[in-house]
Amino acid sequence: MEKIKLAILGYGNLGKGIECAIGQNADCEIAAVFTRRAPESVKLYGDAPVYHVDELLKRKDEIDVLMLCGGSATDLPEQTPLYAGDFNVVDSFDTHARIPEHFARVDEAAKAGGRTAVISAGWDPGMFSLNRLYANAILPEGNDYTFWGRGVSQGHSDAIRRIAGVKDARQYTIPVESALESVRRCENPELTARQKHTRECFVVAEEGADLAKIRQEIQTMPNYFADYDTTVHFISEEELMRDHAGIPHGGFVLRTGRTGRDGEHSHVIEYSLKLDSNPEFTASVLVAYARAAYRMNRKGMTGCKTVFDVAPADLSPLSPEEMRAHLL
Amino acid sequence: MEKIKLAILGYGNLGKGIECAIGQNADCEIAAVFTRRAPESVKLYGDAPVYHVDELLKRKDEIDVLMLCGGSATDLPEQTPLYAGDFNVVDSFDTHARIPEHFARVDEAAKAGGRTAVISAGWDPGMFSLNRLYANAILPEGNDYTFWGRGVSQGHSDAIRRIAGVKDARQYTIPVESALESVRRCENPELTARQKHTRECFVVAEEGADLAKIRQEIQTMPNYFADYDTTVHFISEEELMRDHAGIPHGGFVLRTGRTGRDGEHSHVIEYSLKLDSNPEFTASVLVAYARAAYRMNRKGMTGCKTVFDVAPADLSPLSPEEMRAHLL
Repeated sequence: MEKIKLAILGYGNLGKGIECAIGQNADCEIAAVFTRRAPESVKLYGDAPVYHVDELLKRKDEIDVLMLCGGSATDLPEQTPLYAGDFNVVDSFDTHARIPEHFARVDEAAKAGGRTAVISAGWDPGMFSLNRLYANAILPEGNDYTFWGRGVSQGHSDAIRRIAGVKDARQYTIPVESALESVRRCENPELTARQKHTRECFVVAEEGADLAKIRQEIQTMPNYFADYDTTVHFISEEELMRDHAGIPHGGFVLRTGRTGRDGEHSHVIEYSLKLDSNPEFTASVLVAYARAAYRMNRKGMTGCKTVFDVAPADLSPLSPEEMRAHLL
Repeated sequence: MEKIKLAILGYGNLGKGIECAIGQNADCEIAAVFTRRAPESVKLYGDAPVYHVDELLKRKDEIDVLMLCGGSATDLPEQTPLYAGDFNVVDSFDTHARIPEHFARVDEAAKAGGRTAVISAGWDPGMFSLNRLYANAILPEGNDYTFWGRGVSQGHSDAIRRIAGVKDARQYTIPVESALESVRRCENPELTARQKHTRECFVVAEEGADLAKIRQEIQTMPNYFADYDTTVHFISEEELMRDHAGIPHGGFVLRTGRTGRDGEHSHVIEYSLKLDSNPEFTASVLVAYARAAYRMNRKGMTGCKTVFDVAPADLSPLSPEEMRAHLL
């Protein structure tokens, strides 16, 4: 069997997760890792070659799909359109508000080059988006709810780290159980930010820092914390390393809706994820969509795609007959 | 806007559910109901025309998609291949073991006629199948679990009704909460039928019937009840009508899997449905897939399809731009 050759651009948490995920997919293999750092400074888990990103175009023929593992703030808006004309690409672009603009730029490049790009794969956007779409198509009259957590929010953790006197921090987003239960009972609650999630912060302060002032700054920070019930715990650096080294996340997508002659019957569709490692799960989703990008490109389906455009069968290594016999 | 014209063949619970569901989808309209009964004996909720099934082929041009609402035991194996050459069709064929054979016959007819058929839509097979496929593609190393209920099983209720001395009966399939919890904790339990579900039966006995004998016959019935912890309650006909007139159902599809360098991180993907009305929810799924069948046919994607072959975007009445802006 000819394997699908995946290359990784950027070897951070997501890139490492992709290296691991490729090892779980027998029809895929790792072609190479590309980095902006000095290649000899990058140590992989496995033994794939590491090249400087400047070599990427030269090695075009060795790559079926390029996995873009940069961040959504500055890397992907530049990289995905840049490479989508020369490679089939997959990214996890997750700045919801800027997706239409990102889509347009990637679509233009991919179409010009006859390539297939899948953007915004992962779990939100990604699997959560899919569940919103399916549930809305099935129950046109209803209400949508998304809850996140319990999990580490990188953006909120970073915001705490920027406060004077803070050495390190980890922030957990936690769904409010009573709100979730109200949704599941089809009470169709209208929920404020505060009613949906609480925020719990574990903070390592610098020696002699004013803890009361740090707590106050966190709890009143606009956008990030002011609209939530926020708990702040001061802990030692050792405790942070020992108890909060993981990057768990997850959440819940629910739609409740009504059917029948007079909407007399209620239904609850719920999808949830409980993830020990946010980047490794995201990486696993990206590898499945890399398989789809490769297949869609061979079928002539070029341009930019999202999870909405990918037929589920294209994600699976199984044959159509096996899928129908074992999964349907 | 040109509406998609859906015709219903068979006006039982599912057909009625489709009539209701069409009313919730502004881009669809009901063309007609076709029946094997005397048309004047069939009273719809709304005012669509009712015709005898013999008129179906004559009215081919008035129909974009034919919704086949018969049963999987005898109706659909005959009807779907019969009509798939002349109409785009959607069915909810749910005899898992016979799907490959059904697929082959429908595919041949649909391809010959240049039509698009979607078979086995609904929730299991259907939404549950999709969730098995997505979760398996994302987490190649893991375990699958499906639990059904709490809900009415028509087949098991019928089996009880066939016992001498039974006037009417309703059987509920109930998932075992402790088994579900064990799966969610990633304990990867191996579960027997008895460990996954219990069965609860509400039975109306004929006057003077031997209740102990009925209970014994139910609890020892092979395939249906012998492998389960089965509770039997004798109730009056009035109680059955008052408390058990609904057709609720639902269930849970879970996959737990591992990622990381040494499989050190666990993940739980869970999808669940809680449905007040099994046939109305199934009908709502079928209407979404009718939209997809219509669109796929216009794109030249003919032959037999399952939920695995349908790109999610084809299920939604929204434009690609709206979907990306609001659901992604």
